[in-house]
Amino acid sequence: MLWFRRKPKGTPPMTVQNRQVKLASRPVGVATRENFSFETAPMPAPADGEVLIKVLYLSLDPAMRGWMNEAKSYIPPVQLGQVMRAGGVGEVVESRSPAFKPGDFVVGMTGVQEYAVLKAEHLTRADPNFAPLPAWLGVLGMPGMTAYFGLLDVGALKDGDTVVVSGATGAVGQVVGQIARIKGCKVVGIAGGPDKCRMAVDEFGYDACVDYKAEDVRKRLRDLCPNGIDVYFDNVGGDILDAALANLARGARVVICGAISQYNTTTGMKGPSNYMSLLVNRARMEGFIVFDFAARYGEAAKAMARWIAEGKLKHREDVEEGGVDAFVETLNKLFTGENVGKLVLKVQA
Amino acid sequence: MLWFRRKPKGTPPMTVQNRQVKLASRPVGVATRENFSFETAPMPAPADGEVLIKVLYLSLDPAMRGWMNEAKSYIPPVQLGQVMRAGGVGEVVESRSPAFKPGDFVVGMTGVQEYAVLKAEHLTRADPNFAPLPAWLGVLGMPGMTAYFGLLDVGALKDGDTVVVSGATGAVGQVVGQIARIKGCKVVGIAGGPDKCRMAVDEFGYDACVDYKAEDVRKRLRDLCPNGIDVYFDNVGGDILDAALANLARGARVVICGAISQYNTTTGMKGPSNYMSLLVNRARMEGFIVFDFAARYGEAAKAMARWIAEGKLKHREDVEEGGVDAFVETLNKLFTGENVGKLVLKVQA
Repeated sequence: MLWFRRKPKGTPPMTVQNRQVKLASRPVGVATRENFSFETAPMPAPADGEVLIKVLYLSLDPAMRGWMNEAKSYIPPVQLGQVMRAGGVGEVVESRSPAFKPGDFVVGMTGVQEYAVLKAEHLTRADPNFAPLPAWLGVLGMPGMTAYFGLLDVGALKDGDTVVVSGATGAVGQVVGQIARIKGCKVVGIAGGPDKCRMAVDEFGYDACVDYKAEDVRKRLRDLCPNGIDVYFDNVGGDILDAALANLARGARVVICGAISQYNTTTGMKGPSNYMSLLVNRARMEGFIVFDFAARYGEAAKAMARWIAEGKLKHREDVEEGGVDAFVETLNKLFTGENVGKLVLKVQA
Repeated sequence: MLWFRRKPKGTPPMTVQNRQVKLASRPVGVATRENFSFETAPMPAPADGEVLIKVLYLSLDPAMRGWMNEAKSYIPPVQLGQVMRAGGVGEVVESRSPAFKPGDFVVGMTGVQEYAVLKAEHLTRADPNFAPLPAWLGVLGMPGMTAYFGLLDVGALKDGDTVVVSGATGAVGQVVGQIARIKGCKVVGIAGGPDKCRMAVDEFGYDACVDYKAEDVRKRLRDLCPNGIDVYFDNVGGDILDAALANLARGARVVICGAISQYNTTTGMKGPSNYMSLLVNRARMEGFIVFDFAARYGEAAKAMARWIAEGKLKHREDVEEGGVDAFVETLNKLFTGENVGKLVLKVQA
């Protein structure tokens, strides 16, 4: 029956099979390929109200490492045998909802797979004419929302504040720094290596950037923020959080957005030894989850879009090739600091 | 000239000499007698606007250990050679201010000495007919103010909150627990040993008290606070802070009042490893200094006095004998947990 072999054996047409990455075991420390199974499943079919999406780009986020753990958190852990949770942007290939039609571009929690079926109400629209699709996973997606509400609401940014941002060029940090600058504040970044520090200043408009790999962060912050830090937006935790705590201004707000330096720990989280600076400086440290601001995403998206259109808000994505099979290695670039800007995995063209 | 010896040799009349305890060197770890010099100085004389006070009781507070360090804090460190800073209550023996007359009882920063000269505007009145003098260093003094503003303002106490208080029977904790109960909240204490735990429940009205010396604090808090902790008032830091953080309710407020478990550390402060619970639970951790509420002390004092008069607010002081020479040993009872209630040193009758 040779006539069936229109493609070489072992290469099924992409349209009828779905490559998936499932969590196979819970990582201890850094996640490895052994913690996942790479499977090929039949193409899923949408039910009423659902949409079939061809996933084009996946968002790779530090929080994903936490989702692999069993511990109770703000969302349930990914179960063993489940497709790894991930946000993605893709193209509608089949719709059983009046809200979307084939050819539309959408953002949603697609998971690490080539095709996903999602309920229409869990999807938002992406417009590639306004910004490239990967930006809808960054500045115009969750990282952008996180930056906006974390800085303005949780951080309660005020005129004249001195703002310090760790992970200064990362997906969230690059937006935090720019919003603070747009609001007229003095902004100091913290990033790893001269290239990122240069980018922070030249591309994102930070007043200065501390290279934590080469400099004494505590001392540099003291020099750069002689009146203390009013808002510290923390993406990293660990020693850098302590260095910032040592330099708070009175009434400071420490926004806890992430702790990327601690997510792969096998020896226990490092708590901030300098937390009593909160007492001395009548300061507060506050955590948040961007989902709580869902009702106000529209407000943030409108502001971001305007700033982008006005050329005030730039964005940088690091789009890596390799498809879903490269998921683990690409994700781990976040923890070694190899990525530059919002890390995105290209799934397919 | 035997006629001068109306008292036995070596025992000068108390009215003409002033016994003082001065900081001689900065302690490393627990303070010892060697860190102080015990001196006898001439009786000080008040200038215009000043008052000479016979110190009767001294307040011994955990914060005093911090004042002995050189590090920058919310007030300057005690300088070497300076009389050790302390709050005290005493009797006016000579006044060069119209605000006070001999025989009045006053509270102020007298220092660790038998007689002190202070400006009248730095003194407040104590009424021994309303409450015994030591209570003016506790529930009616700084610890009471600290409890009131820390719980109600910083902790933003709300109806129906579940409140947890460490150092539950201490100077501040005993007041925090009772105010929370007066406000109708569920209140769980944490204290060391069965006696203090019994006192927390029987005398101060806590719903329950965890004995951190005998019980798994994290697990007991989970059992006692099945819906999580809304306000955690922390006086101790260390592992107990971590246990509380592991049990926060969503939107919790962690009030950082002190960290007595860490004040004598020689190996560095232990930071709260579970601080990411602030993120998961959208919670905040906030420090404060009671002095910032000075303009509202009257409000708090009025409320406390009413509750005491109504029998709703009890207070317990631990009055130790020994005079100023016993300062160091008595202070250290705070750190071993030997004291029960507000620790006060009786200076003289």
